[in-house]
Amino acid sequence: MEPNCPTSSNDYAADISSIRQAQVRIEPFVHRTPVLTSETLDSITGRKLYFKCECFQKGGAFKFRGACNAIYSLDDDHAAKGVVTHSSGNHAAALALAAKLRGIPAYIVIPKNAPKCKVENVKRYGGQVIWSEPLMQSREDTANKVLQDTGAVLIHPYNDGCIISGQGTISLELLEQASEIDAIIVPISGGGLISGVALAAKAINPAIRIFAAEPMGADDAFQSKINGRITKLSEVNTIADGLRAFLGDLTWPIVRDLVDDVIVVDDEEIIQAMRLCYEILKIAVEPSGAIGLAAVLSSSFKTNPAYSECNNIGIVISGGNVDLGVLWNSVNK
Amino acid sequence: MEPNCPTSSNDYAADISSIRQAQVRIEPFVHRTPVLTSETLDSITGRKLYFKCECFQKGGAFKFRGACNAIYSLDDDHAAKGVVTHSSGNHAAALALAAKLRGIPAYIVIPKNAPKCKVENVKRYGGQVIWSEPLMQSREDTANKVLQDTGAVLIHPYNDGCIISGQGTISLELLEQASEIDAIIVPISGGGLISGVALAAKAINPAIRIFAAEPMGADDAFQSKINGRITKLSEVNTIADGLRAFLGDLTWPIVRDLVDDVIVVDDEEIIQAMRLCYEILKIAVEPSGAIGLAAVLSSSFKTNPAYSECNNIGIVISGGNVDLGVLWNSVNK
Repeated sequence: MEPNCPTSSNDYAADISSIRQAQVRIEPFVHRTPVLTSETLDSITGRKLYFKCECFQKGGAFKFRGACNAIYSLDDDHAAKGVVTHSSGNHAAALALAAKLRGIPAYIVIPKNAPKCKVENVKRYGGQVIWSEPLMQSREDTANKVLQDTGAVLIHPYNDGCIISGQGTISLELLEQASEIDAIIVPISGGGLISGVALAAKAINPAIRIFAAEPMGADDAFQSKINGRITKLSEVNTIADGLRAFLGDLTWPIVRDLVDDVIVVDDEEIIQAMRLCYEILKIAVEPSGAIGLAAVLSSSFKTNPAYSECNNIGIVISGGNVDLGVLWNSVNK
Repeated sequence: MEPNCPTSSNDYAADISSIRQAQVRIEPFVHRTPVLTSETLDSITGRKLYFKCECFQKGGAFKFRGACNAIYSLDDDHAAKGVVTHSSGNHAAALALAAKLRGIPAYIVIPKNAPKCKVENVKRYGGQVIWSEPLMQSREDTANKVLQDTGAVLIHPYNDGCIISGQGTISLELLEQASEIDAIIVPISGGGLISGVALAAKAINPAIRIFAAEPMGADDAFQSKINGRITKLSEVNTIADGLRAFLGDLTWPIVRDLVDDVIVVDDEEIIQAMRLCYEILKIAVEPSGAIGLAAVLSSSFKTNPAYSECNNIGIVISGGNVDLGVLWNSVNK
């Protein structure tokens, strides 16, 4: 049942080799997203910023890279039975789209409280929506039933070597587009994105610093780094609906070893960064997508002497799936 | 007092040579804006669309290209006295920014009813704002007084060879980025943008069709093409605040000869296209910027057999300077 994704030669679930193979595998399907710069934001932050705009990725988020790599790594027999996920957000839409491209079914278990635009994305890409109650237990139970009924393959949204390798292709592109980068700030949730980005970037240039940006109301990665072990929270509370998951056993070792620091910001800072993305960069970003800019604008980052030598900072804008009304209501609270 | 911009060897105010020279002149200063594509919008329109995103240009609009070319074409003595304009919108911000780069004063006459974000752009770029009454006579009188007081050079927003040449650099980039393009849709107002785009594109490939997109409430170009002469309107009424100007004597001959057709859309179509830009392309566009997408979505375009062979269509997204609240209010009327 395991997809035939290259496994790592070291302790991690992916490495630069599996990431380069992912790039070859997914290159016919993904957008090479542009890197935007803004002298206005450079002037506000006192750094040179390079925004890697995964909001322009197919499906509106970076998730398509990993989903595409996972699905195209399946052998034909397994692929034919389809794929399942119980992730509600951008991974679901990405999986549906990648499955559609390969011509296989995608069964998407979605909690009833998921944002409207994300559900619409799943439907637009031909995913078969299967509703569950919001609680994780109900989502997992529903997904398990689908697995039993269909024989499909479960594609985890982040705790998966193929997913991590797919997301890592962002670093390969970004460092080609802006080789002067000396630090990359990446949103952190379950850790699939930052694991791939960190593995690729540090393999290309070990001096590059990798910073996680995390919402205060879901700061499990921050707590995990302090405690030296995966630390889950009893509850999460943040506007950044894409950043509410916890690290997995495959992403944690990479985050533990390769992420230089976790920068925690509150929802107010995220909303302010969303507004700047809209007004200055002219891009539509969801709250999770704006958190990297929020981090570089935060006083904890600006005033920390350890970061003073980070002059060329890549910021991964992870996604842009936000209802216009939600954005407007957010910035006008 | 004339800037030393290359003049054309034919009857027009610019040509491919002056446009190529403009590209060399402004290349150190402008963004090479990305071209975005969307399978969702391709599927809706039944064409392959290439969005040239000048909303990501410095100052948030294509206007910086022309302004930069005009200002860097001035000799040092004339430049030192500064530049003046009585355009309220994106040209004003662009001129202020280009003047700031060259280190010369920019005197910007702005009517009191100009959109807030455009005034803020002018101020952010160091322009000296001089308020006038909204009527054109007051704007011109105020600008003339500034000219007399300062000896600065008036830079017209579109009826100027240097401006037209600067805007034409969009075609040079676009046809490098997507050489399969067989048609380009361009917003039309005073005609500076479409003149440059048409001159460059048709010089590179005479088979490329050039379509103007114009709001129904300010359709002077449409009327002018029918009448065979510049036709001004007694009043204009459109949400597209950047498309309310009339053709000038330098842009009209180019529009008359090189623009294949004018596609007229109403404000409702513009607003719907803005929403699609936000939700699907994930870009912030002002009403004028969305009109090209509105045109390709319009029933008059879709059902016209003459356009059925336009399969690869470049769409110039001219600018993204829109207040978030204005966007939200527009799509929720």
